[in-house]
Amino acid sequence: MKEQMGNERESELIIGRNPVMEALKAGRDIDTLYVAKGERTGSVGKIVSMCRDANIIVKDTDMKKLDFMCGNQNHQGVIARVAAHSYASVDDIFKRAEEKGEKPFIIICDEIEDPHNLGAIIRTANLAGAHGVIIPKRRAVGLTATVVKASAGAINYTPVVKVTNIVKTMEELKERGLWFVCADMGGETMYKLNLTGPIGLVIGNEGEGVSRLVKENCDFVASIPMSGDIDSLNASVAMGVLAYEIVRQRMN
Amino acid sequence: MKEQMGNERESELIIGRNPVMEALKAGRDIDTLYVAKGERTGSVGKIVSMCRDANIIVKDTDMKKLDFMCGNQNHQGVIARVAAHSYASVDDIFKRAEEKGEKPFIIICDEIEDPHNLGAIIRTANLAGAHGVIIPKRRAVGLTATVVKASAGAINYTPVVKVTNIVKTMEELKERGLWFVCADMGGETMYKLNLTGPIGLVIGNEGEGVSRLVKENCDFVASIPMSGDIDSLNASVAMGVLAYEIVRQRMN
Repeated sequence: MKEQMGNERESELIIGRNPVMEALKAGRDIDTLYVAKGERTGSVGKIVSMCRDANIIVKDTDMKKLDFMCGNQNHQGVIARVAAHSYASVDDIFKRAEEKGEKPFIIICDEIEDPHNLGAIIRTANLAGAHGVIIPKRRAVGLTATVVKASAGAINYTPVVKVTNIVKTMEELKERGLWFVCADMGGETMYKLNLTGPIGLVIGNEGEGVSRLVKENCDFVASIPMSGDIDSLNASVAMGVLAYEIVRQRMN
Repeated sequence: MKEQMGNERESELIIGRNPVMEALKAGRDIDTLYVAKGERTGSVGKIVSMCRDANIIVKDTDMKKLDFMCGNQNHQGVIARVAAHSYASVDDIFKRAEEKGEKPFIIICDEIEDPHNLGAIIRTANLAGAHGVIIPKRRAVGLTATVVKASAGAINYTPVVKVTNIVKTMEELKERGLWFVCADMGGETMYKLNLTGPIGLVIGNEGEGVSRLVKENCDFVASIPMSGDIDSLNASVAMGVLAYEIVRQRMN
């Protein structure tokens, strides 16, 4: 991620108290506020409380790291990372399904960290006819420039929603009629499950898989048949294989 | 690729006349020889002719680029890029199929350029039960350190074969009973094809797709249903979706 941070330096960081304050007032999509450890004097305190109100992640950060992040510009103790593309709402996803006259089909990313994976997932979501992608605010990559590029344009069509708590969002979506399936070992072979209803497909973290609480909230655990010598597919490939099993079942 | 070249500088470049000559004599898997433009004096001429005999790609390269590649070490006009993992033979692939008592299932990469894609393809090939992967010598990424890493260990099990001419190799494989399917728009929907026989799955270049001659040599053109707004899936995701359609059909 370090090299990427370098690439994004110019395009996605807002540096210094006034610029960050202005971005907040303008309602820009800020993924993270980096603030000098313990620093809350003057306008910094106000910036931090505005971020908390807007549910933006605030990270106490070493001065040295702040210096490095912005190439020793005068950051005055605050740097904000803005998204390279704006986020949508859950309602946008349902609207897209409704406009197409289709049962909702949503991709839930449970802590995807690699920007190339998230980009490829958004790309595949678009082509497999999913109506949107939901990502968590914490411990996951947001809509960085690399993600936008890897989505190959799909980000302009497929709504991506960032939520504070994946499990809570799943509960809300269940009330709106969705069923949830996650990919994990030890589940039922995907070909044997009925995946034709309104569905949320949950993709787990690259290393850890689907987290326990999220998995407990899934109605089905689907397994992709594996006949090889290693453990698991790449996250975006696994998502593609499962998404297209849903496509196949919906076509019948 | 530039940043990667940096990463691989230490591990995969052999720098200077004597070291390159020794590597050639030892029969190491060399992907490319970079030689100073027009330079053929002394042992350089011998190195170039040994590479030609061994079917190794020789690239005439600017002195400045050679300097940059090796961080201004004393390259004496020659740098060899070695593979991070050794290549296998087509017979190794057939042997693996035979040992497993399965009909051959081979992945043919037609000029995949992105090392993350090739790595993910080898990873998926392993898990979907393909018996090997074939890549071309030219206009494609070889087994670099990034590819090996992205394969998540699969490279230790799944043979990867590098061939001079993909079309010629396909013709030889046809004589050994293989059918070929490639992914391209305008083909028959993959679910309607019979993909249960001994099969070679052809994956095209990230930007250009499957090349004309290769496509003409395929028995089937399979299309993945697309209902989105953009053009195409990521190459490794498309490969995963098609490979698992073959897995599904073989399970029935």
